[in-house]
Amino acid sequence: MRILGIDPGIATIGFGLVEVEGAQTRMLQYGAITTKAGLPLAARLWQIGCDMDELIAQCAPDVISIEELFFNNNITTGIAVAHGRGVILYSAEKNGVPLYEYTPSQVKQAVVGYGKAEKRQVMDMTRRLLKLKSVPKPDDAADALALALCHARSTTSLLQRANLEAKQTI
Amino acid sequence: MRILGIDPGIATIGFGLVEVEGAQTRMLQYGAITTKAGLPLAARLWQIGCDMDELIAQCAPDVISIEELFFNNNITTGIAVAHGRGVILYSAEKNGVPLYEYTPSQVKQAVVGYGKAEKRQVMDMTRRLLKLKSVPKPDDAADALALALCHARSTTSLLQRANLEAKQTI
Repeated sequence: MRILGIDPGIATIGFGLVEVEGAQTRMLQYGAITTKAGLPLAARLWQIGCDMDELIAQCAPDVISIEELFFNNNITTGIAVAHGRGVILYSAEKNGVPLYEYTPSQVKQAVVGYGKAEKRQVMDMTRRLLKLKSVPKPDDAADALALALCHARSTTSLLQRANLEAKQTI
Repeated sequence: MRILGIDPGIATIGFGLVEVEGAQTRMLQYGAITTKAGLPLAARLWQIGCDMDELIAQCAPDVISIEELFFNNNITTGIAVAHGRGVILYSAEKNGVPLYEYTPSQVKQAVVGYGKAEKRQVMDMTRRLLKLKSVPKPDDAADALALALCHARSTTSLLQRANLEAKQTI
């Protein structure tokens, strides 16, 4: 199963692709879609949509794992991120990729085993679990890999794989 | 000049098309795009994108006039509306339609002449200015027509038309 993790945003959208085979989970690719701050919002959204379509075509994920949106102190940034996330969800649906949403504490619980873990601990566990030499950069890409790992280690994902294997043995 | 007013949303997206010729502004069409509450968010966003593409193709607007997003008390609804608005902006850019954004008080100022006017006053003035027998339903469609009127009566729009006429006389 190929899982594409997405850390939503408007300026930087992190992505991380992992492949799960039995008990093995390996990193295939990671990076970020970026848009220029000077561009009008509509132009940035159009670019995000086009880049997402291309990313999905290139990565061929079985599922997308994306962060649920919570509002922090900066409402203006939050509104812009929600606009971007809308286009990401639209692209997932357009390309027929099932979508799973996780809260930051679900990611921390699944990756570190503790829902209130520090960001640094999540990044370090992501690096270890995927057997990487260093924590991926930018942070958005590391966050996206953590989201992919979270889905790989979640109950939903385990059930999906059981169903997939059951189908394959029929 | 054909102006398509859009009142953004996730469950109901109001639209209203007006045509401006010299000092005349007339209503051509209004209505709403609706999505079902039971559908997953990604499916609703995909539908909004498809319906917006179709609406733009059918209305052939020269510009889109859309409400700027402000957060009221309900942050959860606000996040969903921002997702929908992201897809609407994406569709405008995809279809090459210039976009103008107005705050609720700019709409009130342009339509009623008073930035703190009541919603009912805006609706009634919209009805009068467009010579309609009754206030359009749903409210989202009336709001969208007010947005289109706001652009028709704004300085930006007047300058656009002056440039357009200057080009036509060259």
